[in-house]
This record gives sequence, C-alpha cells and structure tokens, in this order.
Amino acid sequence: MKLIKGNVVYSPRCGELVTLPHGALALSDDGVLTEILPAAPEKADAEVIDCGDALILPSFVDMHLHAPQYPMVGLGMDLPLIDWLNTYTFKNEARFADLDFARRTYRRLADDLITGGTTRVCMFSSLHTDATLVLMEELERAGVTGYVGKVNMDRNSGDVLHETTEESKRETLRWLDACGDFRYVKPILTPRFTPSCTDELMAWLGRLAEERGLYVQSHLSENLGEIAWVRELHPDCPQYWETYAKYGLWKDHTVMAHCVHSDEREREAMLRHGVTVAHCADSNINICSGVAPVRLMLDEGLSVTLGSDIAGGAMLAMNRVVTTTIRVSKLRAMKTDGKDGFLTVDEAFCLGTTAGHRWFGADGGFAVGKPLHAIVVDDGGFAEPVRELTLRERFERCVYLMDKSAIRAVWSEGRRVVG
Amino acid sequence: MKLIKGNVVYSPRCGELVTLPHGALALSDDGVLTEILPAAPEKADAEVIDCGDALILPSFVDMHLHAPQYPMVGLGMDLPLIDWLNTYTFKNEARFADLDFARRTYRRLADDLITGGTTRVCMFSSLHTDATLVLMEELERAGVTGYVGKVNMDRNSGDVLHETTEESKRETLRWLDACGDFRYVKPILTPRFTPSCTDELMAWLGRLAEERGLYVQSHLSENLGEIAWVRELHPDCPQYWETYAKYGLWKDHTVMAHCVHSDEREREAMLRHGVTVAHCADSNINICSGVAPVRLMLDEGLSVTLGSDIAGGAMLAMNRVVTTTIRVSKLRAMKTDGKDGFLTVDEAFCLGTTAGHRWFGADGGFAVGKPLHAIVVDDGGFAEPVRELTLRERFERCVYLMDKSAIRAVWSEGRRVVG
Repeated sequence: MKLIKGNVVYSPRCGELVTLPHGALALSDDGVLTEILPAAPEKADAEVIDCGDALILPSFVDMHLHAPQYPMVGLGMDLPLIDWLNTYTFKNEARFADLDFARRTYRRLADDLITGGTTRVCMFSSLHTDATLVLMEELERAGVTGYVGKVNMDRNSGDVLHETTEESKRETLRWLDACGDFRYVKPILTPRFTPSCTDELMAWLGRLAEERGLYVQSHLSENLGEIAWVRELHPDCPQYWETYAKYGLWKDHTVMAHCVHSDEREREAMLRHGVTVAHCADSNINICSGVAPVRLMLDEGLSVTLGSDIAGGAMLAMNRVVTTTIRVSKLRAMKTDGKDGFLTVDEAFCLGTTAGHRWFGADGGFAVGKPLHAIVVDDGGFAEPVRELTLRERFERCVYLMDKSAIRAVWSEGRRVVG
Repeated sequence: MKLIKGNVVYSPRCGELVTLPHGALALSDDGVLTEILPAAPEKADAEVIDCGDALILPSFVDMHLHAPQYPMVGLGMDLPLIDWLNTYTFKNEARFADLDFARRTYRRLADDLITGGTTRVCMFSSLHTDATLVLMEELERAGVTGYVGKVNMDRNSGDVLHETTEESKRETLRWLDACGDFRYVKPILTPRFTPSCTDELMAWLGRLAEERGLYVQSHLSENLGEIAWVRELHPDCPQYWETYAKYGLWKDHTVMAHCVHSDEREREAMLRHGVTVAHCADSNINICSGVAPVRLMLDEGLSVTLGSDIAGGAMLAMNRVVTTTIRVSKLRAMKTDGKDGFLTVDEAFCLGTTAGHRWFGADGGFAVGKPLHAIVVDDGGFAEPVRELTLRERFERCVYLMDKSAIRAVWSEGRRVVG
C-alpha cells in the first residue's frame, strides 16, 4: 500500500469542491485509489509519498484535440474557417504520411500533454493508419491514456488529404487489427464530420461500431455555415445530429465536439442517447464559431466536458482551457444579462477534470476503486500572498497560474509517470 | 556603434506589419536606434550582436496595472467587483505599509515584467508614499521604465486603506520631492477614480498637474454601476469624463483605463483632448465589466493602448494580453454580426507595442532616433512546423506561444537589461 500525503482538492460533482488540508490518498500496490483520507495519519504501515505543502488535484482530461494539428498551433488565427482549413489544416495533416515527422511531433505532443497534467484524452489523428499507430505508441510511452481515432474522410477534403471509400474501410480495419497491442490507448471511430463522409462510409462505420462495441467521436453544430451545408447534404434530416443518428453513430458515449449552436431539441437528443459534449471555448472564439450555452446544458443535465481543440484552440494546457472556459462563460453571462450565469472556478475545473474522468467510468473527481489519475501542484513559486491563503484560495490561484513548472508529479492510470 | 542582427518584425502603425528577414538594427554607443536595415551587411565596422535565426520585436508596453495587487493575481475571480474590492483588493493594498513586504513583492514584479518583455509601464502603486518609492527603485533596478503613481484616495475606500485629504496632499508632495532621484521611472498623478477622491482633492491635483507639468492616469466608465455612482456624486456633470475635466485632469497624455462603456460623446472628448485609452481585455471579462468598442475607437482615431490590469486581469505576460485582446474582439465581432470587425494579430500586437511606445514619444514600432526598446524571441523551442514558415507566420506563432523561456534578450531605453 502507498500513501500520498498533501493538500487534497477535488470536485466530486459540478458546483461542489472538497478541500482536505493535510489529507492523503491511499493506493493499492497496483495504483488503485482505495481511500481518500481527510487527515493524513501520523504513522502508516505503507510507503509514504509526502508531497509536503503541495496540492494534490485530479489530472486533466482533454476530450477533443487534433494531434496532427499540433505543429500549427497559433497559426492562421485571423482566417475564416474554410480558408484556415485549406491554407493550413489539410496540408498540415497531409504531412503525417511521413512517419519520421509523425514520430517526432507525436513524441513531443505526448510529453507536453503529460507534463502539463493531462492524463486522459479523446483525440483525432489524421487519416493515416501508420501515423495513428505511431501516435498511440507515443501516448502509451509517455503515460497518456484514452482514445485515439484514425480519421475517416472520403469526400470534400481537397486534393492533399483524401481517401476513397474503399481505402477508408480497408485502412480502418487494418488500424483496428493493429490496436490490440496497446494497453492504455484504445481506438475510437472518428468520421471527421458529416460533410467529410459519404453515406456509404457513415453506414459502414455505424455497423462497425455496433459489431465491435466501439465508441464514436465527431463534430457537431460548430458554426452556422456548416449546419446549412449538412442540411443540404442530408435533406431528410431535420437536424445535424440526425445525420449521425440515422447511421447508428449517435449513441451512448458518443463524443461530439463544439455543439455551439445545438438548440433545445438537439440537446434533448444528446441527453436521451447519452451523448457527451466536448466544449472547446478557445477554439470557438478563435474561429468565431460562437459561444456554446454551457450553463443551459448543465442545467438540463447534459454531460459536458472540455477540449483544447488544438489547433482551432491555441492552448494545450488544460488549466488555461479551464480559465478560458470561465472567461467565455462570463461573456455569455453578460450577453444574456446574467440569465446564463457564468461558470465558477470550481464548476469549470470540474468540467476539465471530473466530468472527463466520468466519461471514462471513473466518477467523483478522485474515483475510489479506480486507478489513480492525479497531479501534484506546487504553488510555492507564485507571488507571496499578503496573508495565509485558505486551501480553496490556493486552489483558485493554481487553476489560474499553474504551468508545467509548478506540476511536480503526475499519476496516470495508477502509475507515477512524471516526477 | 552596434549592430543587432536577426529577423526584424514590427508594426509601424495599426494594420501594417514590416517583416525583415535577416535584417538588423543599428545602435549608437548610448543605445539610440540610428537605423533599421532591411538586410544586415556582411561586414560592419561595429560591434555585432548576432541573434541568429531569432526574431527581434519591439518590447511590450503595459499601460495599466496595479503593482500592489500582484500578490492577488488569480484570486477572487468569481466575485462581483465590490465584493472583490472589499474581500481582496483594499486589504491587499493595505499590506504595503510594510516596506519589507513591498520590497520583496515589487522586486519580483519588476523581474517578471522585464523578463517577460515589458519595458515600459504606466502603473498604479498604492496610497503609500514609501512603498511607492520602493516600487520605483525596483523598477529602475530591473530596467523597467515609465510612470508610477502614488494613489490618491480620500473617500469611499473602507477602513483599511484610507488617507485624509490633508494626508493625501502632504504625501503626494513628499513623494514628488523624492522622485527626482529616478532616471527611468517618473511620477504620474493618480486619483484612484472619481468616487475615491473628494472634490477638494481633485481640484488640488488638477492645479498640481498644471503647475508641475505632470501627466494623469485614472479609471473611466469601467462598469455601469460605477457610472451611475459617479453621476450621483457629480450631478452637474453629464458624463463621467467631465468629472475629470472640470478639475483640469482631462488633458493631453491623460491615460484612462477601461472606457468599456464610453459612448460617442465621451470618445469624442478623448480625441479632442488627447486622452489615451488603456484597454484591459482580460480584466473586463474577469470582472464582467463588458467589452470595449476597440474597433470603433480605432476607426475614430483614438489612441488605444493595452493594459494587463493586474489583478482584475490575471495575466502579466503582455503577449497573452495581446491574444486575449484578439479573442475578446472576436466576441464583440460575433455580437455585432461582424460590424465591429475583430482585431487581427498584427493590429493587436501594434496596440500592445507601438501604440504604447507612441504615448512615450517614440513612434513607429521601432523609433529611429530614440533609445531602443526591443525583445529577442527564439521560436526554436516551438513544435516543428510541417514546412518552412514565413517570417510573418513565425511572428504570429511567437505572439500566441511565447513565454519567458523564449525571450532571450531585452533592451530597455537603449540598455540591454536581459540576456
């Protein structure tokens, strides 16, 4: 048994924060959290890992990002979506036919994720099977866990990045066959978005999801032009989500990025089918998509998680994604004259941690009975406060100010992978 | 003579960007910029400082921040303005009666500013004369230049932070007498804001500004409650700005922070009197003040600069303030259906550099004939791009991604103070 001692802070559910000064987490030898102790015992018949005065928080979960767009973070931010896709995104992703380039880029991305405290991801790769396997290898090596999808896209994707329907099917099967070797990183079916996939491919993916019990991720209602385009492509579907539903892709654990313009009916369909929202605040601003009604979604009981959406988003560090989520919610609060109350620090932190872990089947912030996902944050390097801060206050400063240099240790799936 | 070689990028005016790959800056021995060279000469009869493949940019200018609020950055961000002031701000500032604490805090702030590439500031201190002098000493020591104000506040400031009208006058004179020793940091008169100063004090400050040729900084039209309060206090003034104007504080070089709710008439009064706006995008969101009409201000020809507004703002790094300014302008663009076009990277960078330097009398981004203010940014640590980037693209990535670790050298008022 192990005992990790420190100042424990977590959000068991949205709006609640537990602060345990000088608390502890008890782990079994294989890294499963067995108990959360409000007070660390003086003596323990266990290996003690003493984090001193540092804070122990749940790790972050990034529920939407495009790994092959990592090289273009912070590029083309002034361009409209379609120009941005054509000038940067597709050409960028096409580069991942080169496995050496993929290896270098994905090694760096995996390191940046884990040292930044993100231990679980739900991630898009490119359409390249081999580069996707390289990505999964590098995530495993670094200690990042979660789901990765080879992207399916057999129409409307330009010259540089294209697969035929046959290629898409064949490569998807080849990729799935090769995924069995991974322990911590699993495959998820990933039609890029409705305009990128023929009906034939969508139907085939839906059957595959059913046959093999695979999860699905895609994009939904990001901007108004996209929604109009989807309506043209599927005149039989009253709403965007139904283009996924009619092929069996709209189901429990399906992750839909953005949902900026999802109205009450579309949101109700999410709730009914167990679909999870990956809210990407930074991306939605950068690309001028709009501001998602997160407060409404939470009030309605939807599962809302956060995504960095690299590279529509320009920040990989999830604590910055959390504070950006707060900022954007404040703009929505102002816009609605306070009707949609803004997200508090505790709430947004819950979305970036607890809500994501819950999607992976580990509930409560720190999930007793599950392998530990946690970070240790040392706030000793921040400016000296004018008085002793409460643990709640120290937690807030960490969320706003921490960077990699403050993250002293990371546990991922029960293993200490940093520090 | 000295020659600084590297990739030179600057914005001579809002909307223009000059990129000079393998260019150079020529300096006199005393640090005055004598020439901007589009191509660095092969041989030069000068001391050569070779920045290799790094970028040479103008340094940042932070036109509004509260030095004594540095210890509370990232605290109380969920509170409404008045609770935030009473719970944190006033108590925090009161702590600066302790000169040892002031010394430690201000030394750190000055270091964080200069290593982050901010070489010019227009800054609020607290009401404490001695701590203000400590602040000025520490800025000078670190190489930060600009203006600092002992705050005047003789009403409506609670129990912990108060001065009588007589004390305020006496201490202001004592402070001004002691400021003669500083070479790079100058005093600026700083009535906190209209509700904090009696009419008698305002009138006295106006006369002092006139007699001694001093500049003035304060707050204007930050939120609607404040505006209503000012109207109650000065029923004779149709608008907020006139409470400054009637005492001679509304004049050339006056810096007004926020101006979120300044309407056409108030903006016209700024233009007519040479008043400069310090736009504080992050603070305005965090405290839910609103979104200033920056695009309109620029179209009308106003002088708009940027401020971190620590600690209403939660980021000291001015490149992050620049990108936050872009993000907030995109939200305003969406809100106005594109009528107020968003600020491009080039434009927002211009506001955070060139526009600030212009207030100090140094125009054009890099001001030939003036002591150099510049930073050297090494983008070699960013993710490997998929192709060679243009200098314009590299510049954009720097604005979005740089942190202290990428800033290799800083020149301030002609002196190399970092690197």
